[in-house]
Amino acid sequence: MKVYSKKIIIHTKKRIDFVRLTDVVRKAVKESGVQDGIVLVNPMHITASVFVNDNENGLLQDFKNWLEKLAPKKFDYNHHKTGEDNGFSHLWRTIMGRETVVSVQNFEMELGPWEEIFYGEFDGQRDKKVLIKVLGE
Amino acid sequence: MKVYSKKIIIHTKKRIDFVRLTDVVRKAVKESGVQDGIVLVNPMHITASVFVNDNENGLLQDFKNWLEKLAPKKFDYNHHKTGEDNGFSHLWRTIMGRETVVSVQNFEMELGPWEEIFYGEFDGQRDKKVLIKVLGE
Amino acid sequence: MKVYSKKIIIHTKKRIDFVRLTDVVRKAVKESGVQDGIVLVNPMHITASVFVNDNENGLLQDFKNWLEKLAPKKFDYNHHKTGEDNGFSHLWRTIMGRETVVSVQNFEMELGPWEEIFYGEFDGQRDKKVLIKVLGE
Repeated sequence: MKVYSKKIIIHTKKRIDFVRLTDVVRKAVKESGVQDGIVLVNPMHITASVFVNDNENGLLQDFKNWLEKLAPKKFDYNHHKTGEDNGFSHLWRTIMGRETVVSVQNFEMELGPWEEIFYGEFDGQRDKKVLIKVLGE
Repeated sequence: MKVYSKKIIIHTKKRIDFVRLTDVVRKAVKESGVQDGIVLVNPMHITASVFVNDNENGLLQDFKNWLEKLAPKKFDYNHHKTGEDNGFSHLWRTIMGRETVVSVQNFEMELGPWEEIFYGEFDGQRDKKVLIKVLGE
Repeated sequence: MKVYSKKIIIHTKKRIDFVRLTDVVRKAVKESGVQDGIVLVNPMHITASVFVNDNENGLLQDFKNWLEKLAPKKFDYNHHKTGEDNGFSHLWRTIMGRETVVSVQNFEMELGPWEEIFYGEFDGQRDKKVLIKVLGE
């Protein structure tokens, strides 16, 4: 059995942004030497998300507009009594999900034709860590 | 360590539909010979979901009505500038989730009394693949 | 390869409540003897959630208010034709997610600085089971 861990740093210029992770995860899977197993990918932060969807700019813009409707940035969240101003970031990450687990076979992720792994940043402009964990044989 | 992969095809007659997967996954777990471990189930498409909930027709209808409220089918999504008309499908799948991971013990999934695994199709009427990956000893 | 399973009982006094699970999961990881691997945590019920977010009371209240807006408790859900009154509980759990998978390294969970594991109860006041599964070497 092989287990491989890797952490990468993401630092977005914008507070809200999407970063395509597919190639970075593919590289980690190669490095792991795991032929058959799974890979877990998650942010180590509670205002960010790792999710799988389409690499299409219009859709990524739709996500932002839609999340703003479901949980507006400007709102009197209880969380803000702590001095924070990122209540919406916690809710957006909840909708988008924390983590993904993807199958690995023949040293490659088994992704469908349009499946791409994304990092969703909802409170950025500072260093954030993403954890990649490969497990198998 | 044992690792077992299986893909099944789902083709729904309706564009939006739910298909119970519990027995199909149970069968794959048996085939894997894994006694103690986990099973990952996910669609290989970005307009579909695998999720765990109640096998109750009223609730499945509630899901459809509720998703329509959160992300209406008829809406001017940016994604549609590509010629697509399935913006809502990507958002519905985001709410319902991509994948599930279930514990396996004594060659059986450890599901609670009402836990059932479903495939949620949000842009169907064509062949779609679901991946089942069993991992353990 | 090591695989370890544990179930814990949660019984909340309130119908809707959040319970911090981080220490309980940490203890199970220690008991497992797994040095390097993953841990899966999920409720065995379809009206509850296991999720990762901030241990901050204002935010936990924000979650409740926000879920009530997205899926009101008092609503004529089709699911209620069965005699149930917990339609909202199934939808809230869908938003919050069923499970989480966390990396384990050096016998410890690899959580980010603010990541805490929570059990979200949306139809409580009775015994509910949470499953913890550790897998690795």
